[in-house]
Amino acid sequence: MSPLLQNLIQALRCLPGIGPKSAQRMVFHILQKDRLGARRLIEALDAALEKVGYCQECRMLSEESICEYCSNPRRDPSVLCVVESPDDVIAIESSQQFKGQYFVLMGHLSPLDRMGPEEIGMPLLEKRFALGAIREVILATNPTVEGEATVHYIAEMARTYKIPATRIAHGVPMGGELKYIDAGTLAQALSGRRHCAE
Amino acid sequence: MSPLLQNLIQALRCLPGIGPKSAQRMVFHILQKDRLGARRLIEALDAALEKVGYCQECRMLSEESICEYCSNPRRDPSVLCVVESPDDVIAIESSQQFKGQYFVLMGHLSPLDRMGPEEIGMPLLEKRFALGAIREVILATNPTVEGEATVHYIAEMARTYKIPATRIAHGVPMGGELKYIDAGTLAQALSGRRHCAE
Repeated sequence: MSPLLQNLIQALRCLPGIGPKSAQRMVFHILQKDRLGARRLIEALDAALEKVGYCQECRMLSEESICEYCSNPRRDPSVLCVVESPDDVIAIESSQQFKGQYFVLMGHLSPLDRMGPEEIGMPLLEKRFALGAIREVILATNPTVEGEATVHYIAEMARTYKIPATRIAHGVPMGGELKYIDAGTLAQALSGRRHCAE
Repeated sequence: MSPLLQNLIQALRCLPGIGPKSAQRMVFHILQKDRLGARRLIEALDAALEKVGYCQECRMLSEESICEYCSNPRRDPSVLCVVESPDDVIAIESSQQFKGQYFVLMGHLSPLDRMGPEEIGMPLLEKRFALGAIREVILATNPTVEGEATVHYIAEMARTYKIPATRIAHGVPMGGELKYIDAGTLAQALSGRRHCAE
């Protein structure tokens, strides 16, 4: 195959979930049928790389120094939801159940990957806690060992500032059938059971 | 979501098989973890768009005016394999069973999609036939209605120039189990049966 095509196939593999076969399919599709689309992709990618950085308040990906969530006056700044990644912000937004602000860790505590408190933005979060405007911090990290360690760390820090910390509920997903749910999730669902009146 | 991110998600959808969810995942991955890879992707895409065109002899995607298959002196120019797309060339090459040259239709006859003989390069193929150097033309289009119509058209043209035309075999794929093979393929496999001695 021509070196430029091989090079492009290799370069496409920086995209997550793209193996050599799909990269090859993409290259042939683009060059045969969608050169205009590929030009647009170059421009969009270039603009995003140039201009998208991190929000100075919550670390969300943003093209402004303060992101759309932090700068939105209709969002409640006294409730802070802590998530691991920008995808999580989008997922929570799609639930339309949260009108507070976010803090994006961009990872989780994981000493083996050299992710310590600094790397996940703890100094910035602590500064925010110290301002005294937060009534509740909702910890919405992933239910993994690292996520739980991160929850523990942040909950301790919140306690220092006397801020109530909560954890999103874990249990059987809506529409899920019990027989297909793994044991760990069922254990969580049982231990987290609530009175029917609630 | 920030307009630049939305724009990039939209632009990524020019890639085949990428829906809004995977595009979003790609955008967040690139911007958080692989900006260097994204830069390389821009460069590779740009170089390919600028320089990759079509081989003047066989219509394969190529950065030279004559592609690596047509210009390779170790390939036999008297056997021509006709395929629908560049992917098919790569697939046949991977079988290591063919040492002749290719002709890439870049589609198949399909009047509804305005793909007539001109669009699939018939004038160029006929010129090649007329040169008198071809001993056999192997028709390796896809086994679809359009592919068969294309086979019919090219076989007729080959007959005019007294060039024997052959069709690749269709039947049960190697490693395939009979019980999972569709009826049409089995019918082909039966009608195309050969003596065991062969």
